[in-house]
Amino acid sequence: MEKITVSSDPAATEMLAVATAAGIDTVWDRHRMQQPQCGFGSLGLCCRICWKGPCRIDPFGEGPQFGICGADRDTIVARHLARMMAAGAAAHSEHGRHIALAILHLSQGRLADYKIHDEAKLLAVAGRLGIAAEGRAVLDVARDVALKTLEDFQNQDDETPCNWISASLPAKRIDRLRQLGVLPHNIDATVARTMARTHVGCDADYTNVLLGGIRAALADFNGMVLATELSDALFGTPSPVVTTANLGVIKPTAVNVAVNGHNPLLSEVICDVAHEMDAEARAAGAKDGVNVVGICCTGNEVMVRHGIPLATNYLSQEMAILTGALDAMVVDVQCIMPSLARVAACFHTQVVTTMDENKISGATHVSFHEETARETARRIIALAINAFGRRDQARIHVPDVKHTAIVGFSAEAVIGALSKLDAEDPLKPLIDNIVNGNIQGVALLGGCNNTKSTQDESFQVIAKTLAKNNVLLLATGCGAAAFAKHGLMTQEATNLYAGDGLKAVLTAIGRAAGLDGPLPLVLHMGSCVDNSRAVALATALADKLGVDLSDLPVVVSAPEAMSEKAVAIGTWALAAGFPTHLGTVPQAGGSANVVKLVTEDAKGLFGGYFLVEPDPEVAAGKLVAAIKEKRAGLGL
Amino acid sequence: MEKITVSSDPAATEMLAVATAAGIDTVWDRHRMQQPQCGFGSLGLCCRICWKGPCRIDPFGEGPQFGICGADRDTIVARHLARMMAAGAAAHSEHGRHIALAILHLSQGRLADYKIHDEAKLLAVAGRLGIAAEGRAVLDVARDVALKTLEDFQNQDDETPCNWISASLPAKRIDRLRQLGVLPHNIDATVARTMARTHVGCDADYTNVLLGGIRAALADFNGMVLATELSDALFGTPSPVVTTANLGVIKPTAVNVAVNGHNPLLSEVICDVAHEMDAEARAAGAKDGVNVVGICCTGNEVMVRHGIPLATNYLSQEMAILTGALDAMVVDVQCIMPSLARVAACFHTQVVTTMDENKISGATHVSFHEETARETARRIIALAINAFGRRDQARIHVPDVKHTAIVGFSAEAVIGALSKLDAEDPLKPLIDNIVNGNIQGVALLGGCNNTKSTQDESFQVIAKTLAKNNVLLLATGCGAAAFAKHGLMTQEATNLYAGDGLKAVLTAIGRAAGLDGPLPLVLHMGSCVDNSRAVALATALADKLGVDLSDLPVVVSAPEAMSEKAVAIGTWALAAGFPTHLGTVPQAGGSANVVKLVTEDAKGLFGGYFLVEPDPEVAAGKLVAAIKEKRAGLGL
Repeated sequence: MEKITVSSDPAATEMLAVATAAGIDTVWDRHRMQQPQCGFGSLGLCCRICWKGPCRIDPFGEGPQFGICGADRDTIVARHLARMMAAGAAAHSEHGRHIALAILHLSQGRLADYKIHDEAKLLAVAGRLGIAAEGRAVLDVARDVALKTLEDFQNQDDETPCNWISASLPAKRIDRLRQLGVLPHNIDATVARTMARTHVGCDADYTNVLLGGIRAALADFNGMVLATELSDALFGTPSPVVTTANLGVIKPTAVNVAVNGHNPLLSEVICDVAHEMDAEARAAGAKDGVNVVGICCTGNEVMVRHGIPLATNYLSQEMAILTGALDAMVVDVQCIMPSLARVAACFHTQVVTTMDENKISGATHVSFHEETARETARRIIALAINAFGRRDQARIHVPDVKHTAIVGFSAEAVIGALSKLDAEDPLKPLIDNIVNGNIQGVALLGGCNNTKSTQDESFQVIAKTLAKNNVLLLATGCGAAAFAKHGLMTQEATNLYAGDGLKAVLTAIGRAAGLDGPLPLVLHMGSCVDNSRAVALATALADKLGVDLSDLPVVVSAPEAMSEKAVAIGTWALAAGFPTHLGTVPQAGGSANVVKLVTEDAKGLFGGYFLVEPDPEVAAGKLVAAIKEKRAGLGL
Repeated sequence: MEKITVSSDPAATEMLAVATAAGIDTVWDRHRMQQPQCGFGSLGLCCRICWKGPCRIDPFGEGPQFGICGADRDTIVARHLARMMAAGAAAHSEHGRHIALAILHLSQGRLADYKIHDEAKLLAVAGRLGIAAEGRAVLDVARDVALKTLEDFQNQDDETPCNWISASLPAKRIDRLRQLGVLPHNIDATVARTMARTHVGCDADYTNVLLGGIRAALADFNGMVLATELSDALFGTPSPVVTTANLGVIKPTAVNVAVNGHNPLLSEVICDVAHEMDAEARAAGAKDGVNVVGICCTGNEVMVRHGIPLATNYLSQEMAILTGALDAMVVDVQCIMPSLARVAACFHTQVVTTMDENKISGATHVSFHEETARETARRIIALAINAFGRRDQARIHVPDVKHTAIVGFSAEAVIGALSKLDAEDPLKPLIDNIVNGNIQGVALLGGCNNTKSTQDESFQVIAKTLAKNNVLLLATGCGAAAFAKHGLMTQEATNLYAGDGLKAVLTAIGRAAGLDGPLPLVLHMGSCVDNSRAVALATALADKLGVDLSDLPVVVSAPEAMSEKAVAIGTWALAAGFPTHLGTVPQAGGSANVVKLVTEDAKGLFGGYFLVEPDPEVAAGKLVAAIKEKRAGLGL
């Protein structure tokens, strides 16, 4: 087998050698074991929607061209993609509903361990949703916001769109989406309908199926916006904070607790109570007390809000356990490798699942409920302190790799920083610099890690190329973590990699904002649900200019897209009007019609479209070209 | 390739020769083309839930044992099954919601083309749902029933179960399901949560995943009950009616319109207006006017309510077009072969899709909305009359095969017939005969057709064996259609095949009900959503006896299970406490743990379990044994 570089992350690479020496399989071994991967599945030409199957379409046109039911390649490919979008929408929205219900219960006095940390955000959200707030008690407003949010899971009138999407996109975009019949009216119902219309013997018109999928993807957007905004109200809106990232944040001298997953409801409380238990940790021999570190998007959530150091992102989550110094990994939902329990079984590390609907065979389950959040968090940290005592000192190996990262760039924080240049009209300096070309455009880099790419590498190549071309860079999710881990969220990176125009703007803003130098090269907006923050910024720009999102020189890139959530995000980015790069080739190549629809025809329908390109250099070039095309459309 | 008998249906077999002669591929050709089917998929060991994959587990233990994310065979198998259950629940419940919304809109005066046909049923339903009805206008009660039903798609409190399931199962069963955490609180939310928990990196404990799937399956049950009961209120509760079944019901001398799919909202109106257009059909040369025939479950719906003849069931739906005498096939949702448009392109037949979320490339789409139902129905029949003029007389070939079928045995109709024996206590004769052994037990035969079986054959073998063993037979869906097509819904069949005890009981009831002889051998309860009718009957029995459903000598069999709806139905049958036979081997064989859970451990948890057995003779023996075991449990 060809020797390949599996990760560009030196810490992960170092730990991989440790894993190999110890004979412990990791995600990269499993990837290798899975080669060659099924060609039918890779092309989307496999269907397992009913028990007459499995059916496969011969991509070469010689074998079967239809499933047993009669579905053709287009229908088979489209159905599978639509179901991925529905699953992504379900995942994000479940997270969002969880936060909404927590706020409802808080407003009812049922949650002693939470409070509204950001009243200004709550009031801003209430205003957007048309809820009167003046002179009312905060918790009453919170209740109404929660109830208005839950309507987006309850409304039964197809023609009345969800509250949140209506309040979060430019009117022109809403009109376009309504005309195309893809404006969701209810998140759950849209997920269920997508499943229903892809049942055997239902929708067999690939365009119709995909429009249904796009409606589900926009339901995903709705779920993400509400998750972000309500989390901000509950836990605070991120503002810039300096922290560190990569496995070197794990301290051999502390009880290390990693929070992994996506939902901040538990991890916020763990951060709250961790230092209350420092004394117990010290008593157990950990001189630096309790050290909470983040992994994946739960990590991003607590990083952008509180500067909690980030240990790593999706693909290298097992490596945190391999350091031998991680005492507990506390997981909630999504993108948690089931292998964690098996890796942890080779160490003292306690893997703790916390959500009743997300257990892992072999892990310890501590059922989390908001009503008893602090108690549960303390119980989990106690498990970590206990595990600390079982450490094998000989096996501790923490890579000496970490980077400073300036993070916490919510839309509000970006506009706040801009207001230092123009307090009256904060967006004006940004628009002026886009118009004068100092900034050519804006790129949002997000999405997952994927073993099909060298971990984190495409993110860096694309970011550096775009920066050189004076593109303002925003990042979320595992993409943001990749930049944080590699030192691209620093002022040094701006000085090193930004083109002159971009550097001048970032420096002007940074200085005005009181930093002794530029803003970091890549602005960390948060977790993957926080892609909504980039849309909020773009919507503010579009509204200010009186244009639609699809008119803006804004592009999206998910160089290592992997999860169904990423499929949903990429799809709503397309539907929002953004050229959207995928570095992973979708399981769709078996249908030329579907490929044409999402890469070409979508441009006429939505303004956005998919750019599929695994090579990051080539991808960056295409993104720059897409930005130039959008600029030309604006006469720039 | 081995010569195999593809159908036990002489009409389908005759038409298959016509198809072969004409060089037109049918479902059986596509089945043959798909051989050999993928072994990984057949065992459930393929995962396409994220774009790191596709991943496959080596069933022999030599190749990969984990997906790239780390998911093991148990998780991979369980996730796929749970998603099938969710999709089934989504499909049935979408149908149910459609009816509920129609009733709501009717109550608001928005639907001129509908009325409440069965006020007694509406009032009975209102009573079950705790809605006061006395002295109120029918439409006001209807509105409250619709709103109470929609709550089952809206409730956000996990701990409050859906209204319909609570009103439809014995209290003991509800308690057991609550204890196991599988009682659904909201259909849509349960579907969405099932999708969310099966997203990459979420639930990785196969038992937990499957319990989540079972909750979705019980949401499916909820959706089916409400679909059945509200359809009865709207269109009438079925009562016995004599009709005919099989392709011979197509009349060369009439404009033939087949209604195919599942949802009665359009087909009911088509039946209403068809004869208004007889004169136009005659003017076009069709001396027998318009002849509406049914296919699949839309066919069952109008058959049990109005005695509309049934042309055929799922697997042979293409054959209806091949007769050359079908002028239009009007389809709504589910189990409609996408190939219909291609087969119809070889004939004059107009394939008309009617639901905006269920189109077929190559078909004519006439968008159906309840507000303009009659107008749409007339437009569709006009298309059929127009197509009639394009018939190629030389290609008309209608098999001379049809059987009488006595159908329409709703739970109310069965109890109504029993009341002729004991007006005071209608269930008493049934219970007495179960106790004295004249009736050994009750079997519900339902589910699909599947190309993996000889069409309809297993149904007949199992039914005849069970009947000989004095098991009372109920049937729904494509199973019911199989019996109707083959003459097993006749008095002659009772005389031929029923064991002495069963024959005596069916004869006593039949005579008391004014029939000149016994009830038919198999009682047609309706479409696949009408499996709820069998549960209603079983619940009445259990409540009368003060036992749980799992105590009753009641079994379920789906010898040709195929669709995700069937997976959901089979699963809720298990969860309701019934031994449930599957003649199709589920895509689960790759996980011994999952297989053990659903075939063995489920018995302890739910009382019900899966009996997987493709051989119908063997299956019948196992079902008889399961009935005997349940009888022994009751001391019989």
